[in-house]
Amino acid sequence: MQRLVLAVATVAALATALPAAAQFQKPDDAVKYRKAGFTLMAAHFGRLGAMAQGRVPFDAASATANAEIVASLSKLPFAGFVEGTSGTEKGQPKPNVWSDRAKFDEGAKKMQEEVAKLAAAAKAGPDAFKAAFGAAAGTCKNCHDNYRVQ
Amino acid sequence: MQRLVLAVATVAALATALPAAAQFQKPDDAVKYRKAGFTLMAAHFGRLGAMAQGRVPFDAASATANAEIVASLSKLPFAGFVEGTSGTEKGQPKPNVWSDRAKFDEGAKKMQEEVAKLAAAAKAGPDAFKAAFGAAAGTCKNCHDNYRVQ
Repeated sequence: MQRLVLAVATVAALATALPAAAQFQKPDDAVKYRKAGFTLMAAHFGRLGAMAQGRVPFDAASATANAEIVASLSKLPFAGFVEGTSGTEKGQPKPNVWSDRAKFDEGAKKMQEEVAKLAAAAKAGPDAFKAAFGAAAGTCKNCHDNYRVQ
Repeated sequence: MQRLVLAVATVAALATALPAAAQFQKPDDAVKYRKAGFTLMAAHFGRLGAMAQGRVPFDAASATANAEIVASLSKLPFAGFVEGTSGTEKGQPKPNVWSDRAKFDEGAKKMQEEVAKLAAAAKAGPDAFKAAFGAAAGTCKNCHDNYRVQ
C-alpha cells in the first residue's frame, strides 16, 4: 500500500507540473473545474468524516479506499484558481488568493500532505485515523477561513 | 509506470466495491457528484483530445499525466447514478440507464478499460496514442448516444 500512496502522489505530482493558464480555454472553465474537484473531494472526505466522528462504524477498507481517492483528487482543483476568478458570493475565492498566492499555494500543499497520511492512518486503526482526519480537516478549514467568502 | 496503472486501478476497484446508495444522503448529492466526476474527466480527456487531433503538439509527459488522471477518475461517476435521478433535459440520463442497468454498467466498464490503456499508448508515441484515444472516445460516445438526453 505504501507503493500505492507513492503511485498516487506521482500521478498528482505530474498533474501539478502542467501550467494552469494553458489548461483552460476560458476562466469559467477553470471555475467549473475547481468546483468539480472540490465537490468530488468533499464527497469522499465526508465519508471519512462520518467514520472519524463515529456517525458510521469505522471500516478500514472503506476508509482506506476513500482516503486514497481524496489524496489523488487533492492536487487537482488548484489549477482552477486562475486570474480574474475571485468573487464576493458565499463559497467564492477572495482576491487574496492571488495577492497572497504563495501562502495560498502553501496552504494547498499542507492539505495535500495531510490527506496523503490518511490511508496509512486508516490501516493503523480508528484512533490513528481519527487523529489524522482531524489534522487534515484543519488544513481545509485554514484555507477556507482565509480565502473563501463565508 | 505499469505499477502506477495497476495502483490506480486498485484504487478505483476499491471505490467500486462501495454500495452506491449508501454513499449519498439524498439523490441530488448523487447528481452533483456524477456531474463533478464527468466535468473533471472531460477537462483532462479534452487535453488528450487536443493532442490526439493535432490541435496542440503531442507531449508524452503531458499525455501520460492526463491519461493517468482520466483513468483514476473513470471509476468514480457511476456511483452517482442512483434511482430516481433520470431527467428529460439535455445532458441528463434517460430512464434506460436503470431499465438497462446491466448494459449501462457494461458500457461504463468498457470505457474504463479503454482509458486505462491511454497512458501506455502515450508512452508508445503519438500514433499509438491517437489510436487509443479514438477507441476511448468511442466508448464515451456509445453511452452518451444510448443513455444521455441529447
